[in-house]
Amino acid sequence: MAPPKPTILVLLSIVLATASSDLLDFRVQNEYCDLPDELVSEIRSYQPTVNRIIDAVTKGKFKGAVYKELADFVDKFGARVSGTRNLEDSIDHVLDSMREKQLENVHGENVTVPHWVRGNESAEMLEPRKTNIAVISLGSSVGTPEEGIEAEVLVVRSFEELDQANFSQAAKGKIIVFNSQYESYGKSVKFRSSGASKAAQHGAVAALIRSVTPFSMYTLHTGEQFYDDGVNKIPAVSITVEDARMFQRYQDRGEKIVVRLRTNIQSLPEATSRNVVGEIVGSEKPKKVVLVSGHIDSWDVGVGAMDDGGGAFISWYSLAVLKALGLRARRTLRAVLWTAEEPGLIGFQAYDAAHKNELDDFIFAMESDEGTFTPLGLEYATGAKGGCILKEIMQLLAPINATRVEPADAVGSDISLWAKKIPTGSLLNANERYFWYHHSKSDTMDVLDPDNLDKAAALWAAVAYVIADLKEEFPRDFDEVRLDRSKLIKKLIKV
Amino acid sequence: MAPPKPTILVLLSIVLATASSDLLDFRVQNEYCDLPDELVSEIRSYQPTVNRIIDAVTKGKFKGAVYKELADFVDKFGARVSGTRNLEDSIDHVLDSMREKQLENVHGENVTVPHWVRGNESAEMLEPRKTNIAVISLGSSVGTPEEGIEAEVLVVRSFEELDQANFSQAAKGKIIVFNSQYESYGKSVKFRSSGASKAAQHGAVAALIRSVTPFSMYTLHTGEQFYDDGVNKIPAVSITVEDARMFQRYQDRGEKIVVRLRTNIQSLPEATSRNVVGEIVGSEKPKKVVLVSGHIDSWDVGVGAMDDGGGAFISWYSLAVLKALGLRARRTLRAVLWTAEEPGLIGFQAYDAAHKNELDDFIFAMESDEGTFTPLGLEYATGAKGGCILKEIMQLLAPINATRVEPADAVGSDISLWAKKIPTGSLLNANERYFWYHHSKSDTMDVLDPDNLDKAAALWAAVAYVIADLKEEFPRDFDEVRLDRSKLIKKLIKV
Repeated sequence: MAPPKPTILVLLSIVLATASSDLLDFRVQNEYCDLPDELVSEIRSYQPTVNRIIDAVTKGKFKGAVYKELADFVDKFGARVSGTRNLEDSIDHVLDSMREKQLENVHGENVTVPHWVRGNESAEMLEPRKTNIAVISLGSSVGTPEEGIEAEVLVVRSFEELDQANFSQAAKGKIIVFNSQYESYGKSVKFRSSGASKAAQHGAVAALIRSVTPFSMYTLHTGEQFYDDGVNKIPAVSITVEDARMFQRYQDRGEKIVVRLRTNIQSLPEATSRNVVGEIVGSEKPKKVVLVSGHIDSWDVGVGAMDDGGGAFISWYSLAVLKALGLRARRTLRAVLWTAEEPGLIGFQAYDAAHKNELDDFIFAMESDEGTFTPLGLEYATGAKGGCILKEIMQLLAPINATRVEPADAVGSDISLWAKKIPTGSLLNANERYFWYHHSKSDTMDVLDPDNLDKAAALWAAVAYVIADLKEEFPRDFDEVRLDRSKLIKKLIKV
Repeated sequence: MAPPKPTILVLLSIVLATASSDLLDFRVQNEYCDLPDELVSEIRSYQPTVNRIIDAVTKGKFKGAVYKELADFVDKFGARVSGTRNLEDSIDHVLDSMREKQLENVHGENVTVPHWVRGNESAEMLEPRKTNIAVISLGSSVGTPEEGIEAEVLVVRSFEELDQANFSQAAKGKIIVFNSQYESYGKSVKFRSSGASKAAQHGAVAALIRSVTPFSMYTLHTGEQFYDDGVNKIPAVSITVEDARMFQRYQDRGEKIVVRLRTNIQSLPEATSRNVVGEIVGSEKPKKVVLVSGHIDSWDVGVGAMDDGGGAFISWYSLAVLKALGLRARRTLRAVLWTAEEPGLIGFQAYDAAHKNELDDFIFAMESDEGTFTPLGLEYATGAKGGCILKEIMQLLAPINATRVEPADAVGSDISLWAKKIPTGSLLNANERYFWYHHSKSDTMDVLDPDNLDKAAALWAAVAYVIADLKEEFPRDFDEVRLDRSKLIKKLIKV
């Protein structure tokens, strides 16, 4: 999922905050939708085709195929880090797989990407008790001097606490521990992304940031962080929830805490990577594109099976299934596997820039980057009429019980930047445990389930195909007023 | 929990197997119990006293005290490994705490204990992909030569598979990976305890054993292992569930796997440790003893907050509460914190031997070593009449909804060796996640909850006090026929 740049963070926060409260009430209901009978009939006419897709993927010759393809892939390459030869080899592997499955126009599109490499990292608590503290540097962090940084620790629960005069004065020369209780990823990730900058503003020498997760088994979670302009770049590392809370207990008892932190980091020259593209060209309107996507790079811990192996593989494999079933839509179906998402949506941004003149032809963009657990339906960011059409389309997924539609202001990580430009959708799935595994060593094949991957791929193939094949083009309108309940309802009724 | 010596393992397996099936049907029911009215009345007369204990611990001046005492303890000492000075310092701390709370006859009883120390340990997969594999040596394992052991890997799912001719022939000179799916701790722990010996019998050079756990976040679990007589002592380490399954996938694809394992181990001279004892001497029959217990030592990973900080601390603290409330029973209440449980119930065995002439006076022994999560009641190993008495006593715990009673052939880890000698009970609690954390770095204070510790301590204090104070002595009979349903029912009805 998204490396939280501040702007994206704000967006995500809104999405997450609203999705869990008011917006759920605005779920597109029948009474608000008044699509023409002809359109409804047309959508319903796809049921046999969708059933064929579902049967092929969940029972037929493709059953278990996504899991197998993905297991072969992650076992062969492991972690796929921006800037590495290994990522490029893994990209070649997917290009080969796409060609083998006879996708069309299979190619890579060059992108300049960062290459940040962690080295050894360790921390030792020297007072009040000598013990090792597990640490993991955050992306783009600087390292410590070779001899490490040894300093007293100051624990804060929030930015507000750090800003208080007594804490702020105490912070100078200290190692700051951010011990913020997890609320939601959207709300809590700011400590990871901006904690070091905030600590540096107060004169701290390093930041130890509690891993952003609702559940911990002494689990370290990495992720990208960003230095504000003008601040001293101090080392930023994650620690476990358990150690953050232990530090808090020491401080609350009035005990002095001293830690020695040692990390080394290499920031190597930028490298060339590739966004990975494969298509089924449209039979009538080849320039019109429905895009399905996930990202192919991963963090350097775990093997990125969940983040975002699952999303990437349901994306390209759903096209392989459609191709094998001989299903060619009126418009072009394009799978794009973004590169270098983790260090800051680098692949997406390059693609967006390179294709800026074609974006008007992108009629719907989908991304799966929040897990491929049991699929429930689709989350979408588009206008009211688009929402109504999606609602009808999702009824076709009744055979796998994945008919839910949830509106949001923006969906996905990469494609969230297209939120007001192109109608977008992301996989709605039972991902309550997504952030348990996220950016940790536990992001492995064991997180995933073959049957769920089958269902997710079937949903992905069906939705993309139907949108790309409908006679009428998917409406390019957006609810500017979505957050205003009465206006939204009025608008929905008027569709 | 118990380091599974083969004999204990067999016992535990029976307990676990039966507890989950037939025996549950034999729960002591009212219709099978026919206690004298006078005894039932006497037990019921303790309700106000039990309420006083519960109120004091869950609402009154002791609320949160067990958690606080335990957090102070684990934050001060961390892991408490058999043979270390740190364990002895932590024992001194508890002796001081017991004296401070005015327990009586507070003292340590010397025990000779092993001192096994892990050093650096690492493993690297060289083929089919170069990557680090997380490993953790098992207790009493030998280390590798300094240059490590590099060999091809053979994966087996079970001892039976390894015994098959094709696997057995292939095993010579290999590193064996045991990839056994978790069934239950009782059933699966044999791979940890005996895997190296089994592998050595087939000529293997090292054993990598899938961690014994129902859930993994790339989590390593250590634990004791035992070399059979006459086998070559080969290094035995745990690996994660995730890596065990990855090895299986490679092998199933026909890919060659090569691993280099490096561990170093020190087996230091035996040391002197202590079982920790504190009492409230009985007012009428001081030689008669009700014993509450847990173990004070821990593994060297995590801080042993769950295994067995919680059990040890509810044990001695329940006596501190009774003392503070001025509750002195007719018989003696004794808290014993066993030392060196992890390397093989060493403290218990020494205590059993040293007190062998007094065991006839031990009328009931309790142990908590399977978690102190939400307390549900009591598991017990005693005869039918004893079961009926416990059933009545547990009704007193209705205010904290912990009235369940479950019979078993043996309970606890240490005290399971007393199963047919002394009536025994252990804490029944909602410990479905116990083996998630067991013997891993995630065994920290975060596993525990202050309110649950309060309730567990209240239950512990109430049960021990009532049994120690009843006019009639707890019956010293055992169901030899427990596994025979009809005989058991007959016996229960006859009580």
